[in-house]
Amino acid sequence: MSERGLLIVLSGPSGVGKGTVRGAIFDDPETNFDYSISMTTRSPREGEKDGVDYYFRSREEFEDAIQAGQMLEYAEYVGNYYGTPLQYVEEKLAQGIDVFLEIEVQGALQVKERMPEGVFIFLTPPDLSELKNRIIGRGTESMEVVNERMETARKEIELMTSYDYAVVNDLVPEAVRKIKGIIETEHLKTERVVHRYQKMLEGLK
Amino acid sequence: MSERGLLIVLSGPSGVGKGTVRGAIFDDPETNFDYSISMTTRSPREGEKDGVDYYFRSREEFEDAIQAGQMLEYAEYVGNYYGTPLQYVEEKLAQGIDVFLEIEVQGALQVKERMPEGVFIFLTPPDLSELKNRIIGRGTESMEVVNERMETARKEIELMTSYDYAVVNDLVPEAVRKIKGIIETEHLKTERVVHRYQKMLEGLK
Repeated sequence: MSERGLLIVLSGPSGVGKGTVRGAIFDDPETNFDYSISMTTRSPREGEKDGVDYYFRSREEFEDAIQAGQMLEYAEYVGNYYGTPLQYVEEKLAQGIDVFLEIEVQGALQVKERMPEGVFIFLTPPDLSELKNRIIGRGTESMEVVNERMETARKEIELMTSYDYAVVNDLVPEAVRKIKGIIETEHLKTERVVHRYQKMLEGLK
Repeated sequence: MSERGLLIVLSGPSGVGKGTVRGAIFDDPETNFDYSISMTTRSPREGEKDGVDYYFRSREEFEDAIQAGQMLEYAEYVGNYYGTPLQYVEEKLAQGIDVFLEIEVQGALQVKERMPEGVFIFLTPPDLSELKNRIIGRGTESMEVVNERMETARKEIELMTSYDYAVVNDLVPEAVRKIKGIIETEHLKTERVVHRYQKMLEGLK
């Protein structure tokens, strides 16, 4: 197996349950891809270890990494930087190991710019699909609230189109099963497999 | 669910076991897509029923259907026509039902011309992946045989690149599981799902 690993990016609106789904995927002993550890400038909480939970770096170090083009994606939240160092991801992919990122929508769009060949999975809240019935059925919402909800839905839909797949997070085991199915299916794409056969044939010349 | 069904095309070199895999997929009670019945000019064998095993038609009727553009794909084998009538496939897809075709490589390429949005799955023989070891390891083949085998492999690889996915048929249950995973994953593609959300939002205007 000499082909590059897949870069798998799981994202979605905040609060949708990305962390829970990612945790369930990595709890599964069958999972054989790597989770990329993020870099941050925030202080370690009790029990957190450098290189395990996060790479803890100073603001200067983080900004140097940004300047040097060493961050695959990053964002600032509440005065601290969070991001994905490029080197680890590149190394693993080159070794043929799939790398899994669970990041915010903003970061995912940055990754998409740099590595459009990644597999981008958008986790959607289950209530989005029930939006119509919920808003109309309730019948008590002001026009303002209805419009606000529609606007939120519209924005989510616009972001969704940048992704390859959309998975509804209604039941976590179902979402996990679907995401694993996506990853397995991506490995069956002809453009990945044909390379293996071609290499084999070249070796025969 | 108002989106179109998926057209799933399973093909591969003759003798690879397409019929066995298709049979196993349709034996599964969970399978909820339709198998398109082929049209043929050959005579029914004992027990075969028109509209169940095949649509049995005269040579004139079949050629009329070709002329009228009513065949999604067709080919002639041993003096008889075999093909897929377009109407049934179109009706089911329009109803949002997935349609499954199990056809020869020649026919699959015709379908690809007419319906490039289909999901094209190439079933590969397991020995192709062992080709190198087998040919070299044996050490007894003449150069002629080695070249012939490499040529066959090359042709298969060239055809493979017209397909979306390649599934090795080593163990039938594994091949079936992968094909079902492909179909489920195709249904998660953003371009299919986003339409559902957009329709919902339009209904809210």
